[in-house]
Amino acid sequence: MTPTITAFESSPDRGRGLARDMAVRWALEEVGQPYDVRLVSFQEMKQPAHLALQPFGQIPTYEEDGLALFESGAIVLHIAEQGQGLLPDNANARARAIAWIFAALTTIQAPIVERETAILFERDKPWQEEREPILAKRVHDRLGALANRLGDAEWLERTFTAGDLVMVNVLRRPAGSAFLAEYPNLAAYVARGEARPAFKRAFEAQLAVFEGGSREDA
Amino acid sequence: MTPTITAFESSPDRGRGLARDMAVRWALEEVGQPYDVRLVSFQEMKQPAHLALQPFGQIPTYEEDGLALFESGAIVLHIAEQGQGLLPDNANARARAIAWIFAALTTIQAPIVERETAILFERDKPWQEEREPILAKRVHDRLGALANRLGDAEWLERTFTAGDLVMVNVLRRPAGSAFLAEYPNLAAYVARGEARPAFKRAFEAQLAVFEGGSREDA
Repeated sequence: MTPTITAFESSPDRGRGLARDMAVRWALEEVGQPYDVRLVSFQEMKQPAHLALQPFGQIPTYEEDGLALFESGAIVLHIAEQGQGLLPDNANARARAIAWIFAALTTIQAPIVERETAILFERDKPWQEEREPILAKRVHDRLGALANRLGDAEWLERTFTAGDLVMVNVLRRPAGSAFLAEYPNLAAYVARGEARPAFKRAFEAQLAVFEGGSREDA
Repeated sequence: MTPTITAFESSPDRGRGLARDMAVRWALEEVGQPYDVRLVSFQEMKQPAHLALQPFGQIPTYEEDGLALFESGAIVLHIAEQGQGLLPDNANARARAIAWIFAALTTIQAPIVERETAILFERDKPWQEEREPILAKRVHDRLGALANRLGDAEWLERTFTAGDLVMVNVLRRPAGSAFLAEYPNLAAYVARGEARPAFKRAFEAQLAVFEGGSREDA
């Protein structure tokens, strides 16, 4: 059965692929799993029908064969477990790939989203100018540590995994990507991710929604 | 082989079980897996030997049989997959349990840690008093949605899972637990978690470190 995911009906990022359906679309493309998309409005997202799928009124969700999932990290992991190519066969390597999914969504994403939230919602506050360097430092601390770990490797483990997919996606968020020029190896890492054919297909699919594509299919 | 985890040599929380080894200890106790503990100082955590295990200079880490893992969520998931009792056998129920691990560590934890960080590191800043209600509202938005979803159920899915373990652990953080009196079902949910024998054993083990227990064994 073809899974169905949800995505924003109106793209808040103007099609830059920053909404959290992007990682899910990318994972589906990597494993070659066709999918349907159901677009939801901001109003629909807060209604009981959507909240039954996603308790926090967000996108994406994922539905197939009696399974309803939420949380993009969990959905990517599920897709990776069902398909081929996103998790190593070796048990230890698989566990480490999963660790990078968690690292991306907690350790790396937390200060990036904190800075993003301040830029979006506290930009007119009197403290924003003085707080900005504090927030930027929190992001830099994590990017610096990640850059040290990556070194001159191509991916975080030996091969591209779901951990890289989620990490690249997190690093694309503007509140962190604004600093990537200071970490050339991370910038190159993100560029490698974005150069993957599956990324490009996923990006085009989410862009098509913004440009007035169909509500039904991706 | 008995796995070895790392924990703080000096407990920053005075033994209240708020450090991130707590979830790992609890998971190990739930599945009945004995473990060793290697205590590390704040100085050791930033040295190359520890950074090779944990790129961000944090605890916990987990080592067994040629596998070195980091990120408490990934470690709990690994323990749950290796042992019995923390993940349902049914594939769909298992995927949903994992989704709650991600929900706890991203959607719920993010605003709690944001508020915690402000309380710890911005308490003397002129903006802290005016920002506090903004931060509190971000936490309440998530706790309210979680309380709505939990309703009068005992656990987030039909049985206690690794998702509940991680969620209870996140809800115990003071920047969120300070509000739990307003969500009686969440307060009771946390109390149910803390009443589990495995939780109690894990709590005692981390407390023993603070009270001067051995550096070697838990």
